[in-house]
Amino acid sequence: MRQSRRGQVDPFIVMDVMEAARAAEAAGRHIIHMEVGQPGTGAPAGARAALATALEQPLGYTVALGLPELRQGIADLYRRWYGVDLDPARVVVTPGSSGAFILAFSALFDAGDRVALGAPGYPSYRQIMRAMSLEPVSIPTTLENRFQPLPDDLPGDVQGLMLASPGNPSGTMLTLDALGGLIDRAQAQGTAVISDEIYHGLSYDRPCHSALEISDDVFVVNSFSKYFSMTGWRIGWMVVPETHLRTIERLAQNLFICPPHVSQVAALAALDCEDEAQANLATYAENRRLMLDGLPKAGFDRIAPPDGAFYIYADVSALTDDSVAFAAEILDKAGVAVTPGVDFDADRGHRMLRFSYARSTAEIAEGLARLQAFMTAR
Amino acid sequence: MRQSRRGQVDPFIVMDVMEAARAAEAAGRHIIHMEVGQPGTGAPAGARAALATALEQPLGYTVALGLPELRQGIADLYRRWYGVDLDPARVVVTPGSSGAFILAFSALFDAGDRVALGAPGYPSYRQIMRAMSLEPVSIPTTLENRFQPLPDDLPGDVQGLMLASPGNPSGTMLTLDALGGLIDRAQAQGTAVISDEIYHGLSYDRPCHSALEISDDVFVVNSFSKYFSMTGWRIGWMVVPETHLRTIERLAQNLFICPPHVSQVAALAALDCEDEAQANLATYAENRRLMLDGLPKAGFDRIAPPDGAFYIYADVSALTDDSVAFAAEILDKAGVAVTPGVDFDADRGHRMLRFSYARSTAEIAEGLARLQAFMTAR
Repeated sequence: MRQSRRGQVDPFIVMDVMEAARAAEAAGRHIIHMEVGQPGTGAPAGARAALATALEQPLGYTVALGLPELRQGIADLYRRWYGVDLDPARVVVTPGSSGAFILAFSALFDAGDRVALGAPGYPSYRQIMRAMSLEPVSIPTTLENRFQPLPDDLPGDVQGLMLASPGNPSGTMLTLDALGGLIDRAQAQGTAVISDEIYHGLSYDRPCHSALEISDDVFVVNSFSKYFSMTGWRIGWMVVPETHLRTIERLAQNLFICPPHVSQVAALAALDCEDEAQANLATYAENRRLMLDGLPKAGFDRIAPPDGAFYIYADVSALTDDSVAFAAEILDKAGVAVTPGVDFDADRGHRMLRFSYARSTAEIAEGLARLQAFMTAR
Repeated sequence: MRQSRRGQVDPFIVMDVMEAARAAEAAGRHIIHMEVGQPGTGAPAGARAALATALEQPLGYTVALGLPELRQGIADLYRRWYGVDLDPARVVVTPGSSGAFILAFSALFDAGDRVALGAPGYPSYRQIMRAMSLEPVSIPTTLENRFQPLPDDLPGDVQGLMLASPGNPSGTMLTLDALGGLIDRAQAQGTAVISDEIYHGLSYDRPCHSALEISDDVFVVNSFSKYFSMTGWRIGWMVVPETHLRTIERLAQNLFICPPHVSQVAALAALDCEDEAQANLATYAENRRLMLDGLPKAGFDRIAPPDGAFYIYADVSALTDDSVAFAAEILDKAGVAVTPGVDFDADRGHRMLRFSYARSTAEIAEGLARLQAFMTAR
């Protein structure tokens, strides 16, 4: 049977690491998970309680753009977090940030269009683009520039620019000025900006800045997955320019019908659970403190500025030029699962590792002890 | 800011009817809903109970293709329902049938490819295709042929063929022979077949037949939305040929990460709730009996063979050539919301109405009484 060209997206190489970790655990070994891209905690208690109550209702389809009270609640976040006055009509509830990207790319780009994005970056950006017949255009970034693109890096012949701050795998953030410079340059040349703000709320030394603080003429993507610890619920949102609302609504009606109703109910209640989210943040902050102390002691001292999210991206070129094999060795000998950089940056990721500190502080401390012992013995 | 051409999908004209119905209810009127495409019932009690218990767990991401036990449970359905022995590895859990279509179209077709489908049909098929830069190719079908295409109707120059039995809006079904004839013709000319079986389980005089009874070399889409009454949960599945499994897995990882975990938990338990699903089916069967008696008495006697689903598609060309205005008149004067055919068939739908009988029997009886009184007075 026929296969499309667009369907031939790249495999995730990290899956081999995860499968090896699973097999090691099945064989009775204890593994510390520093490869995961999600919190170890579940949805806030208030969110789960609200859903337990709502389970008495039929929970049929909602309107395509999401429950009005949820859209209002998200709009209110923008005032609290950024001092931005946002019309809830511009908030679109989506099936995860994944759904938001599909909607944004559909509304903005036609087959063959080119979209620029920093490398390293979240691998699915470019795979979603390929599946939609778009051409991802890599902007190689450097540790010196926080693994974020500069305005002068932006190619002139691209229809879109994908930004991510805090970034994944780097955890690095754009300052308000840097973000503004990129948006200005893109808008000056007619390039649409999509800002992935999925790790917002998870920063340590300074606040995250939204692209909405700079311009209304941007697509902003966010999610309940990270700060609100609701990954598996597949519930996110997107703020769109008023000019694109009708287009996005029609696309959402047809592509998704609606976001999961159960997840919308839980997300609405999660908005009232910032205490629990802040407690998780305090755990990440303590984990980060341990990582910044322990990773250099273990020999991982060339790291990206760990501004936000729960990742540290380390340059291990002094130790290996095969991060996949190195990650396998760390798993095998130290019992710590880490992510090789290859999925995030095909060209340079074989000399990089990503460490996640999203699990409990006890696990992080144990993982660091194992890494130090492993590196000492190596 | 730029807008894509592919993003300019058609609006749903039925939305105006639904908004008018909502406004009438807000103004204090009592409206009977025969326009809805979903059961009035909620998820099975067993599904909701299982989820209530599971809410203690973190419910993070699952693997992209879904919980293994859910895939096994779905494979088991194929033995019970059709006597088909299905490898659970070929079952892909998806975020609704919507997610399944996006995956199937991505894996099979490139930008510019042409996909044939019967008219009338579910409007989102063609809008999803447009958003993915595919070209829907309409096959006009006739009431005489159960609003289903015949093998000779299939154009030679199409890369795909979308089938739906029971169909929406028609409720008509393909016999096993008719289904086989279509699949044989498509395969003989290298056209990929996608069979939408979302209304399976909801048939009255004879069983639904799956494309998997004919061939393994087809994409079969189904969902927990209709028979299991779980529309808002956004959980469905797709059976794919073994040749396409790796492609679909990579696409699912990148496009969706995973289906909603909460919905997977509920769906798994729903598989054990066939008693409740069968009780809903008995309600639809009684509603259908009332409709087949009452609609002709009201003057709606040119109807498609109501084999399955919970729809009746009526030719009202003797009454109007503007089904949108006619539906508005029925809502206004009879207090019954019905769906004009235009969303399903742009060319001929202005002389057609779709009646849904998915609500309670008392509502259906009241709706029929109102329709008869309205038509008598008209």
